[in-house]
Amino acid sequence: MLIPAGDNRQRYVCDACGMVHYQNPNVVTGCIPEWDDRILLCKRAIEPRFGTWTLPAGFMENGESSMFGAAREAREEANAEVQRLTLFCVFSIPHINQVYTMYRGELHQGEASPGDESLEVMLASEDEVPWNELSFPVIIETLKLYYEDRQAGQFSTHYGEIIKLDQRSIRVEHY
Amino acid sequence: MLIPAGDNRQRYVCDACGMVHYQNPNVVTGCIPEWDDRILLCKRAIEPRFGTWTLPAGFMENGESSMFGAAREAREEANAEVQRLTLFCVFSIPHINQVYTMYRGELHQGEASPGDESLEVMLASEDEVPWNELSFPVIIETLKLYYEDRQAGQFSTHYGEIIKLDQRSIRVEHY
Repeated sequence: MLIPAGDNRQRYVCDACGMVHYQNPNVVTGCIPEWDDRILLCKRAIEPRFGTWTLPAGFMENGESSMFGAAREAREEANAEVQRLTLFCVFSIPHINQVYTMYRGELHQGEASPGDESLEVMLASEDEVPWNELSFPVIIETLKLYYEDRQAGQFSTHYGEIIKLDQRSIRVEHY
Repeated sequence: MLIPAGDNRQRYVCDACGMVHYQNPNVVTGCIPEWDDRILLCKRAIEPRFGTWTLPAGFMENGESSMFGAAREAREEANAEVQRLTLFCVFSIPHINQVYTMYRGELHQGEASPGDESLEVMLASEDEVPWNELSFPVIIETLKLYYEDRQAGQFSTHYGEIIKLDQRSIRVEHY
């Protein structure tokens, strides 16, 4: 680790060729597929959090937009086509170097089935959401905002941060 | 390049140790520092686009939130303290594998001066914005949205994509 010329941070630099290997946050992109008053959830067939429920989401890939990536994840994880996406929330999670971009979108014809990374899928009404079996804090916070906005009769776009306090607790900030 | 087990894309994999080197999009985070009816712009002292005008923005670093990173960039590029930030727009730029997160915020006491990466700074009123000397399409689009919202008397949070059509032209999509 050393500080390259013109930089102000320690970076991994190859001893042999001098190439700087930057390590930067990743974008995780996903969506809330909507069908009537229901939303699509997927039961994870992969670690971490195998067997818990989540929204379709995954690492954004090079060459795609974050919105296209969100639709791709729904296709891969739930054989679902999601259309007319709009940005719903952005969450920064500094302790794991991730930024989530989550979209709302229409689930085409309400059709979905488990993809390779899912054990099951469900179209959940609000009272069917398995709040105690959701995969990650960011999924819980996204769905809380979603039902708050739906209750209020108006969706807006949100930004928040999920801050790790210690091994067992987090703090959520909304801006 | 090969497709690792359980993956569906070509990745760089080390011949010696098998480590997969994922290449994912980067987040560029920045802000529109506001002071009365003026905004802070910086004249770039670095390539690319040396000598053109931009908003404070740069690559988000590990361990920080995108909002904190936006304030940090204003500090580094313009010795400016920006407070009470709110998310203003997100732009995906697939052909350069970037996602921009841009915030609005209050420029503390209207104070700014050039940092290492800036030749000059200016507090520009709307009719002083050097539209033909802005650094990047994403800066132009961000400022267009900003003045549209200000004209309308209400700011919201926007998502858009900047798509490269050919060597000389782009298309901007708003969702």
